[in-house]
Amino acid sequence: MEIEKTVADKYLKTYMAEDEPGSAALIAFPTSTEEVAEFVKKADAENKTVITIGRQTGLTSATYPQNDAWLISMEKMDKILSLDEQTLTLNVQAGVTLFQIRDFLAETPYFYAPDPGNKNASVGGNASTNAGGMRAIKYGVTRDNIRGYDVVLASGETIHVGSLNKKDATAYDLKDLFIGAEGTLGIITEMQLKLTAKPAYEKSLIMGFESLDGVSNAIFEVVKSPVQPIALELLEESGIHYSEKFINKKMPEVKGEAFLLATVADNAADGLAFQLQAIQALGKKAGAIETRELSETEAKEMWEIRDNILNGIVNNGDWKMYDPVVPNHLFTDLVQEGKRLGAKYNVQTGFFGHAGDGNIHICVLREDQTDEEWEKLKEDYENDLFPYVAKQGGLLSAEHGVGLEKKEYLPYFKDEAYLNVLRSIKKALDPKGLLNPGKMFD
Amino acid sequence: MEIEKTVADKYLKTYMAEDEPGSAALIAFPTSTEEVAEFVKKADAENKTVITIGRQTGLTSATYPQNDAWLISMEKMDKILSLDEQTLTLNVQAGVTLFQIRDFLAETPYFYAPDPGNKNASVGGNASTNAGGMRAIKYGVTRDNIRGYDVVLASGETIHVGSLNKKDATAYDLKDLFIGAEGTLGIITEMQLKLTAKPAYEKSLIMGFESLDGVSNAIFEVVKSPVQPIALELLEESGIHYSEKFINKKMPEVKGEAFLLATVADNAADGLAFQLQAIQALGKKAGAIETRELSETEAKEMWEIRDNILNGIVNNGDWKMYDPVVPNHLFTDLVQEGKRLGAKYNVQTGFFGHAGDGNIHICVLREDQTDEEWEKLKEDYENDLFPYVAKQGGLLSAEHGVGLEKKEYLPYFKDEAYLNVLRSIKKALDPKGLLNPGKMFD
Repeated sequence: MEIEKTVADKYLKTYMAEDEPGSAALIAFPTSTEEVAEFVKKADAENKTVITIGRQTGLTSATYPQNDAWLISMEKMDKILSLDEQTLTLNVQAGVTLFQIRDFLAETPYFYAPDPGNKNASVGGNASTNAGGMRAIKYGVTRDNIRGYDVVLASGETIHVGSLNKKDATAYDLKDLFIGAEGTLGIITEMQLKLTAKPAYEKSLIMGFESLDGVSNAIFEVVKSPVQPIALELLEESGIHYSEKFINKKMPEVKGEAFLLATVADNAADGLAFQLQAIQALGKKAGAIETRELSETEAKEMWEIRDNILNGIVNNGDWKMYDPVVPNHLFTDLVQEGKRLGAKYNVQTGFFGHAGDGNIHICVLREDQTDEEWEKLKEDYENDLFPYVAKQGGLLSAEHGVGLEKKEYLPYFKDEAYLNVLRSIKKALDPKGLLNPGKMFD
Repeated sequence: MEIEKTVADKYLKTYMAEDEPGSAALIAFPTSTEEVAEFVKKADAENKTVITIGRQTGLTSATYPQNDAWLISMEKMDKILSLDEQTLTLNVQAGVTLFQIRDFLAETPYFYAPDPGNKNASVGGNASTNAGGMRAIKYGVTRDNIRGYDVVLASGETIHVGSLNKKDATAYDLKDLFIGAEGTLGIITEMQLKLTAKPAYEKSLIMGFESLDGVSNAIFEVVKSPVQPIALELLEESGIHYSEKFINKKMPEVKGEAFLLATVADNAADGLAFQLQAIQALGKKAGAIETRELSETEAKEMWEIRDNILNGIVNNGDWKMYDPVVPNHLFTDLVQEGKRLGAKYNVQTGFFGHAGDGNIHICVLREDQTDEEWEKLKEDYENDLFPYVAKQGGLLSAEHGVGLEKKEYLPYFKDEAYLNVLRSIKKALDPKGLLNPGKMFD
């Protein structure tokens, strides 16, 4: 196994560009579960902490190198091992990216349903944050699309959790424990991903509303109806603006100030038509001033706008993004509150995200603030935003995780008894605190 | 809170009628989470073990009273608290039965999707075993249909896990840890159940095959197709026989020796027609000698046969049921192996279950064996069956749990490192071993 004692700069940083480079004693590039296990055993023997790095697309500094840790990069565990059509499973190493998976499956009748924004992410990283994405409204999040995996424990032992079976009442559900644990309980090395049959027909539609508030009822009506779009995204000026600027194209014209972009899928042409009609009817009933099915070209243009909002924001300068989630009917209230706080602190904000899931991405964008002002501004914003989200029954993170960025806000959402359960599980599985210590909670 | 120091006989037994009455020092009938918590604190202070009993419909003796434990009966926590249409959630106490839920929702546009066989079961019991049922192929198991709950820990503290949000990347997934834990990690007291909009159209169809083997391809073709029936059940002579005898009615005539009974649902009439057609075409391609849509009357008759197989078996005399699961393509092989073992040990067997999930119910039925012969026969059967299931990549339990009945076989499926993780979690959450000790694993 390749081990480098001089850790290249790029591994000392995370996607959160503002971080100063962290510290690490060495970095290993395993190519197999056995090599990961061997490395962890050695770290255990020498009482070194281990931080596992995927493709560095995380948004919470969860893989930030600290305290001269031993790093593991999963980038050489990048093999798609096999497609098992009998169980509709794709066997991959955890360092495989979403791009690799998409390309591999392109010519098959199957797809891997989760659709997080950054396709450079590794699927192991997705598992560790329980990444969500655009299609969660219909197909669930990463958790729901992993059948099983090998995980290396803090002891260096490897266990296999989950299975290729559709039901499981065989002792505690360990599968869901390591997913979303941000590498603090074990290191996921090889995975069996659930594949889904591609639907025969897919079409997008757009609905325009006079105001953001108007969108709320439409979301509610669609979500509680029997029709299930595969995506239901909010588009509004503060997000569209950055995307249009970035790709230098205008969004196709639709009446209104706030928009819902939906995609529906079906195996029958009639079924698709029914769904398109049903959603538009619900939208109109809820006050949409324009609704229409999108041609292939227009759909492509509309989704290009959606897909480039974050790129536009990133390109604009310093930024910070939050990913709170609230129950659906409180979604637009949350966006309004995010805007109100932007006005209160006099900071630019951008909003986009998953209306069907109640999960909005709120970005604050730096303008001419000094470093100190910018730090204080984010802290003030967060200390207003998160208590509000908690009060609404929402959560700190819908799909990015906690990492370092949001750790201090976890107590707004979870009481001491709850945190103690988290701590006791961490201690049970990693008594010496070797794996990614200090992330998520103390 | 009502506490009885003389424990009525019915609480000392389980659904597994062969058990001798167990032992318990007292039984409490709490009516609120607070009363459960207070009781557990008292048990903790006095170092008493606590066993929680739902509606005593479990099939693994998981609630069997042992060692003069303090029992909690959840039967007075039987209130449906509220229907929250904004989040499509039903708030219930954990002792509520599936019958209560069904009746309560009958006049609403929503239903609670899990459909375990015994509707007298409490939903808290369903949570503790992660019960499955008929509609899991489309809507998932109990785990997938619980949004959150209050759980009383061994310390007597109460935490709320899960939420009404659709995505969650906020620290470890505790929600799925207590579900399926058979009351060994905490006591679930109040629950938020996920509701689903009732589809507008539903229809059943039947497909007959010349032999059991012929069924296999049809299951496989349906499961991997984009069409998703809400139920896909195997019917074959060994099960039909007991049901027909019990209800004293014949199954509607269909050509063949083994049958797949499917129900499809859709929101559009055309979509329903498409699905019915698609499944029949897949069945014919896979060798079905008759396929047909069922009229409402015929569907009712056919499902009555399906629903009464277990009643027929129970009514026949002593019996034991297993609930292994294998990957779909190995489903009929498992049935054949179950039959082969029946012949090997010269014991009557009955088979029914969830073809779409790979989950078969295998029953052995006592005839004229002596008590000793019957005990030995079950043990021999199990010691052949479970290693076979393990070899096929299957699991010990799909939907009934482990309890006492299957505990000794867990090591066929999980290695020592895995069992040690289970033990360390149990120890972390219940260091004194107060909650339902000795169930599932030692």
